[in-house]
Amino acid sequence: MELEAVFLNCTLKKSPEISNTDLLIQKTVALYAQSGVKSKIIRIVDFKVAFGNTSDEGEGDDWPIILEEIKGADILILATPIWLGDKSSVCKMIIERIDGSTSEEDPQNGQYPLYNKVGGVLVTGNEDGAKKICADVLFSLGHSGCSLPPNSMAYWVGPAGPGPSYIEAGGDKHFFTNKNIRSLVANTSYFARILRDNPIPTNLLQLSEQAKQESE
Amino acid sequence: MELEAVFLNCTLKKSPEISNTDLLIQKTVALYAQSGVKSKIIRIVDFKVAFGNTSDEGEGDDWPIILEEIKGADILILATPIWLGDKSSVCKMIIERIDGSTSEEDPQNGQYPLYNKVGGVLVTGNEDGAKKICADVLFSLGHSGCSLPPNSMAYWVGPAGPGPSYIEAGGDKHFFTNKNIRSLVANTSYFARILRDNPIPTNLLQLSEQAKQESE
Amino acid sequence: MELEAVFLNCTLKKSPEISNTDLLIQKTVALYAQSGVKSKIIRIVDFKVAFGNTSDEGEGDDWPIILEEIKGADILILATPIWLGDKSSVCKMIIERIDGSTSEEDPQNGQYPLYNKVGGVLVTGNEDGAKKICADVLFSLGHSGCSLPPNSMAYWVGPAGPGPSYIEAGGDKHFFTNKNIRSLVANTSYFARILRDNPIPTNLLQLSEQAKQESE
Amino acid sequence: MELEAVFLNCTLKKSPEISNTDLLIQKTVALYAQSGVKSKIIRIVDFKVAFGNTSDEGEGDDWPIILEEIKGADILILATPIWLGDKSSVCKMIIERIDGSTSEEDPQNGQYPLYNKVGGVLVTGNEDGAKKICADVLFSLGHSGCSLPPNSMAYWVGPAGPGPSYIEAGGDKHFFTNKNIRSLVANTSYFARILRDNPIPTNLLQLSEQAKQESE
Repeated sequence: MELEAVFLNCTLKKSPEISNTDLLIQKTVALYAQSGVKSKIIRIVDFKVAFGNTSDEGEGDDWPIILEEIKGADILILATPIWLGDKSSVCKMIIERIDGSTSEEDPQNGQYPLYNKVGGVLVTGNEDGAKKICADVLFSLGHSGCSLPPNSMAYWVGPAGPGPSYIEAGGDKHFFTNKNIRSLVANTSYFARILRDNPIPTNLLQLSEQAKQESE
Repeated sequence: MELEAVFLNCTLKKSPEISNTDLLIQKTVALYAQSGVKSKIIRIVDFKVAFGNTSDEGEGDDWPIILEEIKGADILILATPIWLGDKSSVCKMIIERIDGSTSEEDPQNGQYPLYNKVGGVLVTGNEDGAKKICADVLFSLGHSGCSLPPNSMAYWVGPAGPGPSYIEAGGDKHFFTNKNIRSLVANTSYFARILRDNPIPTNLLQLSEQAKQESE
Repeated sequence: MELEAVFLNCTLKKSPEISNTDLLIQKTVALYAQSGVKSKIIRIVDFKVAFGNTSDEGEGDDWPIILEEIKGADILILATPIWLGDKSSVCKMIIERIDGSTSEEDPQNGQYPLYNKVGGVLVTGNEDGAKKICADVLFSLGHSGCSLPPNSMAYWVGPAGPGPSYIEAGGDKHFFTNKNIRSLVANTSYFARILRDNPIPTNLLQLSEQAKQESE
Repeated sequence: MELEAVFLNCTLKKSPEISNTDLLIQKTVALYAQSGVKSKIIRIVDFKVAFGNTSDEGEGDDWPIILEEIKGADILILATPIWLGDKSSVCKMIIERIDGSTSEEDPQNGQYPLYNKVGGVLVTGNEDGAKKICADVLFSLGHSGCSLPPNSMAYWVGPAGPGPSYIEAGGDKHFFTNKNIRSLVANTSYFARILRDNPIPTNLLQLSEQAKQESE
């Protein structure tokens, strides 16, 4: 069975405006294809995603459609531009909605919907902020159930201060970024395969019961 | 073969002063023992670790001894108190030294010494700061080669403002923390086992070569 | 002339839903009133603020109305709940829009619209994350032109893990938080007064010219 | 009376090794001199500063000497290199020691030793991490009593990935960085002057008393 990756592009710009983050996604998609991983890209602002912290905020909320895609995938990549040294507000909105899914526990073992999926992050910005964003996004994905192989991140930024963005600067030829995309693709694919064959058996309900017994 | 976990206690206080972080470590060690994982605890300030960013800063630097223990283990847990909402300076010093180890690449595949090890984090503080620290520490471990299962973190903090610390507050009876220690132990042990049987095969040297070909 | 403070409540919940953050704002407003500072509260999600990074994203964007209120005030307080250890997405959206205002430079001295205003931050959450948020929000305000007196922040959080929020927990009786609201009110009011009498004279255009001469 | 600035260089490298951060400090010192501000530079690792969270950790601890210099100055600038996207461990150690000084309250008004001083931050690194560090350092300075004018930060970083550092890359000719040093110098000097003439009158002991009355 083929593996599937879902990319959530958290740019602030609606289609058909050009998104630098999208180009970094496209390069990653091409490498996944070579590894036998099928990709789907969702540009969040082209949908109507409501602010909230549940899996469904009611009428007019497109999040349930997107969450369904995530549930059907093996790998989840959040891709975000940098604004003032931080992930985009759209990316934070998605993190809140993903976090909301953790209350949909599996009745057998208490695992959340993203358990046994693999997480990763892509970042572009004209300058500084990528590592902070990677730390925040990967933490949120891990907290929501994803597993994280080493090097499950790739980013491009230029030198300090205003300047050309990824596309304009020819960032697609930047060695460091291209090397990291490759590590991300190799390691997330490998993890998706071993987790499919060896899903995490942890029974969170049972652990919770045991913790209750020793607590007040 | 038994698995082994190494805990680096990054308290600012030398032995025999009482360390709150140590009690949280002890609880985790007891649970690892039940899972067949042997533990070793290293209190960093009882050694002479030099500031630096290499694997050996020369005469009088105890880091090489500690790094040897890490290399021999399957699981690495950084444990730190909170100071002003952030990890301790000792913890940051250790992150810098671990990062330095990434230049010791395996000549066959370019992997760093921490590849195929599993990472986790423990935090105690009288108040606020744990999630930021978990994000920062797990990012650094992932960046240095560790794999991160979901919920590979546990922490205890009290409510906003000065107040009793973990031991004094009876934090060892706190349900949320105790549940999270159990998830950390279950998931890091499981990952250590599947990675021992299925080590990550990624050849970073080869990926680097491929990236060079498409870059400037 | 009376001073004016504007509070932006960045809760995810629309009126008339109860907002914990609003109660913390109300307490602060009452103290400002005693200091001769008039307050205005804006709950962002009750308006239609567009994602973006300019001062006006066009038709249907309510941000210009809110930005006008900020420009007319002396003190700007961002107030946000904690979601997964971080500020709300609504708060990040506001930070992006405020950052966009920095391109509206004063033609005489290059100062941005928020120069000579004073910034502060309020945070509520059931647990952990407040200090990270304060650091991020105050940084963004300082970057966008605000001045920051010491202790220009106040927050309430409960102990580690899920639990009652500010209102339910009786957080309005929490000494540490109440002390900090008072410092925030005293210091931001004082700074607003001295900055009104002694506005920052820095000519950013001139500094930029000088920097150009020594740069490449 | 002349103003005085103290710079704490938090490089990991002892003298006489060359410090990139030192060159950025030197440029700032030259500009302060033009503004009538005298500077003193302290390279922390050339002293024996103990880990700890008090103003004096006892025999062999050089911190009390450095703290005395800070107390005698009007402006405090923390200068740090970037390691793995974060401030140096030496910088975090200094933040812990400065935080320790907040318990030395003025018996009249409860203010800490750094009240009425002005804070700033300088950062150099070969790549990514500066804004996160600025946010963390400025937050810590504000928390410990410093006032922060707008743009009280300057940094230099190169593009994503390993590469030349500030000196080697000719970062001293980087326009964005040079502009920001000028804003930092102009605004921190101005704030130091108005705070000398108009010290913050806030009585923290009194506010604390009032808060107690409405709290549990």
